[in-house]
Amino acid sequence: MSDQQIVLASRPKGMPDASTFRVEVLALPDLNEGDVLIEPTYFSVDPYMRGRMNAGKSYIPPFEVGQPLAGGAVANVVDSKFDGLKAGDLVTGSLPWATRSVLPGKSLKKIDASLAPPSYYLGILGMPGLTAYFGLLDIGNPQPGETVVVSGAAGAVGIIVGQIAKIKGCRVVGIAGSDDKIALLKNEFGFDAVVNYKTAGNLVDAIAEACPNGVDVYFDNVGGEVSDAVIRNLNFHARIPLCGQIALYNETDVPMGPRIQPMLLTRSVLMKGFTIGNYQPRFGEGMKQLAAWVGEGKLHYKETTVKGFDKLPEAMLGLFSGQNTGKMIVEV
Amino acid sequence: MSDQQIVLASRPKGMPDASTFRVEVLALPDLNEGDVLIEPTYFSVDPYMRGRMNAGKSYIPPFEVGQPLAGGAVANVVDSKFDGLKAGDLVTGSLPWATRSVLPGKSLKKIDASLAPPSYYLGILGMPGLTAYFGLLDIGNPQPGETVVVSGAAGAVGIIVGQIAKIKGCRVVGIAGSDDKIALLKNEFGFDAVVNYKTAGNLVDAIAEACPNGVDVYFDNVGGEVSDAVIRNLNFHARIPLCGQIALYNETDVPMGPRIQPMLLTRSVLMKGFTIGNYQPRFGEGMKQLAAWVGEGKLHYKETTVKGFDKLPEAMLGLFSGQNTGKMIVEV
Repeated sequence: MSDQQIVLASRPKGMPDASTFRVEVLALPDLNEGDVLIEPTYFSVDPYMRGRMNAGKSYIPPFEVGQPLAGGAVANVVDSKFDGLKAGDLVTGSLPWATRSVLPGKSLKKIDASLAPPSYYLGILGMPGLTAYFGLLDIGNPQPGETVVVSGAAGAVGIIVGQIAKIKGCRVVGIAGSDDKIALLKNEFGFDAVVNYKTAGNLVDAIAEACPNGVDVYFDNVGGEVSDAVIRNLNFHARIPLCGQIALYNETDVPMGPRIQPMLLTRSVLMKGFTIGNYQPRFGEGMKQLAAWVGEGKLHYKETTVKGFDKLPEAMLGLFSGQNTGKMIVEV
Repeated sequence: MSDQQIVLASRPKGMPDASTFRVEVLALPDLNEGDVLIEPTYFSVDPYMRGRMNAGKSYIPPFEVGQPLAGGAVANVVDSKFDGLKAGDLVTGSLPWATRSVLPGKSLKKIDASLAPPSYYLGILGMPGLTAYFGLLDIGNPQPGETVVVSGAAGAVGIIVGQIAKIKGCRVVGIAGSDDKIALLKNEFGFDAVVNYKTAGNLVDAIAEACPNGVDVYFDNVGGEVSDAVIRNLNFHARIPLCGQIALYNETDVPMGPRIQPMLLTRSVLMKGFTIGNYQPRFGEGMKQLAAWVGEGKLHYKETTVKGFDKLPEAMLGLFSGQNTGKMIVEV
């Protein structure tokens, strides 16, 4: 069967759909000196990729129309003209959505499949794990006995944030959007309370009830009305790591909402946006600690796996309707 | 003439007016052991006092209806049964709006009028000076060559923020609301550029033009649409000390505006609310540095003085229409 790639057919206005993507036959180039031929086995789909579908400058360049999408992936090395890699090696990197690719070997990172299953390098030992680790610990700075609220709690990052907060001795309250997710977070991941934002009614009151001592750290993965409600419950000197705003990514107009600055001002709150790239010099430290916690059984992991290269668009769209519990992975 | 006090007649809904205040005759109590009889000479009126007119918990208790308003003031000691103070001493503290008061001596702080004019202890060597100093340096962390924008630039805090930012080697851009203020900030206080938010037209563009290298620090005294426009011009890793939101203090509904979290997120921006009380352990350090800069002629000071005890309400209302340039002071 010939190789295939999935390209950005057009920039979506609002919510992307099937017409945003196009499958194309791909003719691979020859392998030049320094190149590697790889065959991806697992692709990661992540909310931040929606931002790359828009034109315009951001912290990461936009995808180009007619060019393949790309994202975190694990791949087998099939052939190599690069000194550091050989056929049979397992690598990770930001890879094009293609069944096989020829890439510079230096853009790939070799991983050790004996330490953890390969797909873990796209989740708990990859970008989502490091995002949870640095966002919560560096910006949130949770102290024992404090209350940590995390939105998108059953998502790839949220599920790790909650567990790290528990390791740090905090009361952990999750916000999620289905009863299945709520049961899972309480029963398998040790969350102290979970609020279903779809059925809670008055969300300000529901969060107040779940947080009798107020909110000290709010790890924000979603934005919008969920965040409005949490912000009404903040304690003096609360901290808000801003990690994601998935509720707003498909808005076509500038989203409006209650102004938050008066609340942040009178309560001396810190809010800080971050992207994981900010912490690149400390990735080693984060990976080591996350792997240790996994090894000690303190940190559990959850994936939602969709099978088939052609299911990549569907899996990505599923992020916006909350189809995933834990990390959304596409197994080729 | 009998003593007088000014009490909160009723809690204002929206903008306060003359009916918010009531002048009453005051019968002073006897002086008990530990008490001091004082006669205020200068009162400070400040935007934060509007918040104290509302009921409900904040970082500072509300004024009570029928009770005197209170605020920063300088006073002469007339009589004393307190060991640390004697008649003729000059003191500062949070004092009731009264022509004379009997207060516990321990609630007053003696000041040295040989170092600076007494009213300076309500401004550059008092709460506004310390607010500018800690908010800008501790949260804003301005670096040489960076661009610092300050809103409410001609106000008590803003005019000091701009000068400290210049001392730190920054390009300083002020936002103010009259041509007189703009001329003053440029010609007497060394601001590199000043934007008149009332006449600028498209404020986003006007700020972009005044900040060709973007905005690294935004010291926010006002909130609302002025802040919306600055936030559109932030650089990656910008910092926002949230000091005041005077544009919103008289709103009766929850103010709405464009959601700012997506911008803070994609640009890794830090926003932090603060009140000067957070820095109490470091007041000595701040006072010393501010006094040194004043002594070296690096930091200039500006007051708008209104004369007469009965003008206190008018002076306070004037803050909301920008009547003051620099610190608003009422001289008794």
